[in-house]
Amino acid sequence: MDILFLSGQTGRDPFEDAPCRTPEEERAGKGKVMSHDVKQQTRQCLEYIKNTLEMMGASLKHIVMFRYYLPRREDVFDMRDEMYRFFEEFEPDLRKHPRNATLLRGVGIDLKEMLVEIEAWAVVPRKK
Amino acid sequence: MDILFLSGQTGRDPFEDAPCRTPEEERAGKGKVMSHDVKQQTRQCLEYIKNTLEMMGASLKHIVMFRYYLPRREDVFDMRDEMYRFFEEFEPDLRKHPRNATLLRGVGIDLKEMLVEIEAWAVVPRKK
Amino acid sequence: MDILFLSGQTGRDPFEDAPCRTPEEERAGKGKVMSHDVKQQTRQCLEYIKNTLEMMGASLKHIVMFRYYLPRREDVFDMRDEMYRFFEEFEPDLRKHPRNATLLRGVGIDLKEMLVEIEAWAVVPRKK
Repeated sequence: MDILFLSGQTGRDPFEDAPCRTPEEERAGKGKVMSHDVKQQTRQCLEYIKNTLEMMGASLKHIVMFRYYLPRREDVFDMRDEMYRFFEEFEPDLRKHPRNATLLRGVGIDLKEMLVEIEAWAVVPRKK
Repeated sequence: MDILFLSGQTGRDPFEDAPCRTPEEERAGKGKVMSHDVKQQTRQCLEYIKNTLEMMGASLKHIVMFRYYLPRREDVFDMRDEMYRFFEEFEPDLRKHPRNATLLRGVGIDLKEMLVEIEAWAVVPRKK
Repeated sequence: MDILFLSGQTGRDPFEDAPCRTPEEERAGKGKVMSHDVKQQTRQCLEYIKNTLEMMGASLKHIVMFRYYLPRREDVFDMRDEMYRFFEEFEPDLRKHPRNATLLRGVGIDLKEMLVEIEAWAVVPRKK
């Protein structure tokens, strides 16, 4: 059995985002999100999670727990809608058997433009 | 060895609480806590944790780590008092050998009425 | 394989800090940090992590994930600088192969004087 701890995924722009090394770089916008819409950022988080799992020989259905961080309290509804849509498309088991989750609302995450961060943990049966 | 990741437990009302699907449902009070007192909510969290562990064939003594989330900084003292009382009643080992814990104060959790959220991780020796 | 869950380490003063049992004790300053500088607190967190791992027969290189909590958003840059310095000194592998990490900025942690909290998880191959 392998346990995969996936660190928090965000709506980083996969092409334009760059790590900020100074407050000036951050203020100048070196860190970039791919959209200012919480649904699109949610989908981006889930795609990063899906890709990471697949790169490691696992898949979405191995997820056992989520943790959600939302700077704006009211975004929980749009986030949830988009998650359901994504699950139905890629792994209906996550919709049928909802995984444990911790939800934090009104917390700060990395860039100010980030509206959602999602952590996932997966347990993968070891191949014999 | 099995590792149990228990997601954040809160003071949800076990009979009256219902998931909120829209901001309107939330504002109308569909999500309900069982009390507005932090001690009672703490006890409710711990009872959910105890029940979940027992349902899975484990018990409170298998807990290896806690994480506490408190929206109001000053509630830490009442939360701690109630935890000690609960541990002494149900699992004195948690009082005698305090488990590792991370404490967050002044963070937002799910419903505005929730005063405390507790996550627990447990490690259970595998039965032969 | 053993998994070590290290709870959040902070800049507590290793000699002067005492647990606060009441709001009055906290206001009176019973809980103490070893410095009001985020770099020094970061180094203290990492030293606690290093010592804990070593006490358990593990070392910094076994770390697989970090989680950082920063009450003040802008402290991320100083924290990162100090982490890099510490890693280069004690475990260059952490610098060469950055571990997964979740970063929370603008969240509350235990004492108001604490500027940073760091959690680490380590995976240690089991000795035969």
